[in-house]
Amino acid sequence: MNDNIVVLTGGVGGAKLVDGLYRILPTGSLTAIVNTGDDFRHFGLPISPDLDTLLYTLSGKANVAQGWGREGESWTFMDAARSLGAEDWFNLGDGDLALHILRRAAFENGDTLSVVTSRFAAQWGVSLPILPMSDDAVETWVDSDEGPLSFQRYFVGRQCAPQVSAIRFRGAKQAKPAPGVVEAIEAASAIIIAPSNPWLSIDPILAIPQLREALTLRKVPLVAVSPLIEGKAVKGPTRKLMDELGIHPSNASIAEHYGDLLDGLLTHIGDDTPSYIYGAQTNTLMLTHEDRIRVARSSLELARKCKRG
Amino acid sequence: MNDNIVVLTGGVGGAKLVDGLYRILPTGSLTAIVNTGDDFRHFGLPISPDLDTLLYTLSGKANVAQGWGREGESWTFMDAARSLGAEDWFNLGDGDLALHILRRAAFENGDTLSVVTSRFAAQWGVSLPILPMSDDAVETWVDSDEGPLSFQRYFVGRQCAPQVSAIRFRGAKQAKPAPGVVEAIEAASAIIIAPSNPWLSIDPILAIPQLREALTLRKVPLVAVSPLIEGKAVKGPTRKLMDELGIHPSNASIAEHYGDLLDGLLTHIGDDTPSYIYGAQTNTLMLTHEDRIRVARSSLELARKCKRG
Repeated sequence: MNDNIVVLTGGVGGAKLVDGLYRILPTGSLTAIVNTGDDFRHFGLPISPDLDTLLYTLSGKANVAQGWGREGESWTFMDAARSLGAEDWFNLGDGDLALHILRRAAFENGDTLSVVTSRFAAQWGVSLPILPMSDDAVETWVDSDEGPLSFQRYFVGRQCAPQVSAIRFRGAKQAKPAPGVVEAIEAASAIIIAPSNPWLSIDPILAIPQLREALTLRKVPLVAVSPLIEGKAVKGPTRKLMDELGIHPSNASIAEHYGDLLDGLLTHIGDDTPSYIYGAQTNTLMLTHEDRIRVARSSLELARKCKRG
Repeated sequence: MNDNIVVLTGGVGGAKLVDGLYRILPTGSLTAIVNTGDDFRHFGLPISPDLDTLLYTLSGKANVAQGWGREGESWTFMDAARSLGAEDWFNLGDGDLALHILRRAAFENGDTLSVVTSRFAAQWGVSLPILPMSDDAVETWVDSDEGPLSFQRYFVGRQCAPQVSAIRFRGAKQAKPAPGVVEAIEAASAIIIAPSNPWLSIDPILAIPQLREALTLRKVPLVAVSPLIEGKAVKGPTRKLMDELGIHPSNASIAEHYGDLLDGLLTHIGDDTPSYIYGAQTNTLMLTHEDRIRVARSSLELARKCKRG
């Protein structure tokens, strides 16, 4: 039987797992459904950070050391923009601009985010379907001690410093899943949630009613890879956010958060594992390509072991 | 008596004269009115080649060796755009993108081309008013043996190879001069036409009815600096174009082209000079800053010598 794996993912950490899955699964047996709640416009250009990270990672163009953006990037645009008085809280690399400028031009031509993303992937030889969760605008906002902040203002502009009391996904209730998203879930042999931030990167995906419904109605296993290692996140504000939301930083909390959706949880060796779902452990730290493949393999094995419900 | 010089100009060659004038005239006594017939959108970004060349030249950022664009430019965007399948007949440097991206963002904010240009100039410490001829769209098109071509398709895309039979300025008849343009002409003590291509760079300016009317009604001298040296253009298609349009490549033809508007013509040493207008000669080749100042001085002296009509 052929695998038909669907992975729900955010940016950096999630992209590493997707890359591992992409390398070990036969062509045509993996689909990524990607968070677009972080998407925003900057200088009028449409930026899709998680989609772009997927594109960079899977085409081998990602700057691994930096954790975001392109390898071999240059910054002449930012210098020039700064000299013209432009705000510079969000760095746009010269090469990175190509995605945003061409995406904008394509939007003006009537193309959707799905269509543009698919074309970019094809140009870069990425054979995996990279589906935005929706072609409609969904915006992640945090309520914080500095007031409501859009995701990028919080994440990049304020470097996650504000205390978060709630997270909202503007437009999610009205958003339709992008073409192919529900179909991919319905055709899946297993669903994997990447080790992205459950509250900031995965919840926007789950907040789209028809998408969540398709997940709820599925008859196949759904497993998550925990973003926690020894109770901390490898990168990003997961742990800080859990503290601020009053959530114990444990794998049990991750499992509880996904609730009925979840059949299995892959955790880091030696970490706590909730007893009421299927579990497996591996070294979930992904520094090398081998690490990515190991975690991908473990998540697939766990999914095969799981039974739905 | 204070000078109040207005210069009508296109890009590269014209910008050198403007730079010379800018260096020798007291602050507040020079205004540039700039061709925007070459303006176009590329990847959805609004490009204003002549305005940008003025900005680069006057702020000391121009790439003098290359003849266009910025000094110290990088090309990462173009490489990335090419890898995404984008057309690459028009090169956009990484730093150059800042002008186009920020201009676009400003347009979306409701700013006009005049306002944006003025802001850019101020940011770069250029105290000269750089006025687009119009805030309305005027598009230079050539009728050629390859059919009608927009200016950039002809000039950059086809490197001026097609045979031109006519030149048109779409929208010119309906275009209003930008704020300050007519006022500057009315307040001028002299008007100078820079050594830009009369047919491609100056004619679009003269094609705007209210602007031309203000020039016609003026009571002050108008002198031009001939773009020809020994019957050839320093750069660009002036000579080739004159041949194709059946115009003898002489200063007499330049003078005849400007007709009643012209009171004086500054020409290169030893070249032909029409006898029926005021004339002066200097070495009009502008390679160095000293050259620019020399030609600027000569054009000012000629203007002072001229009488209107």
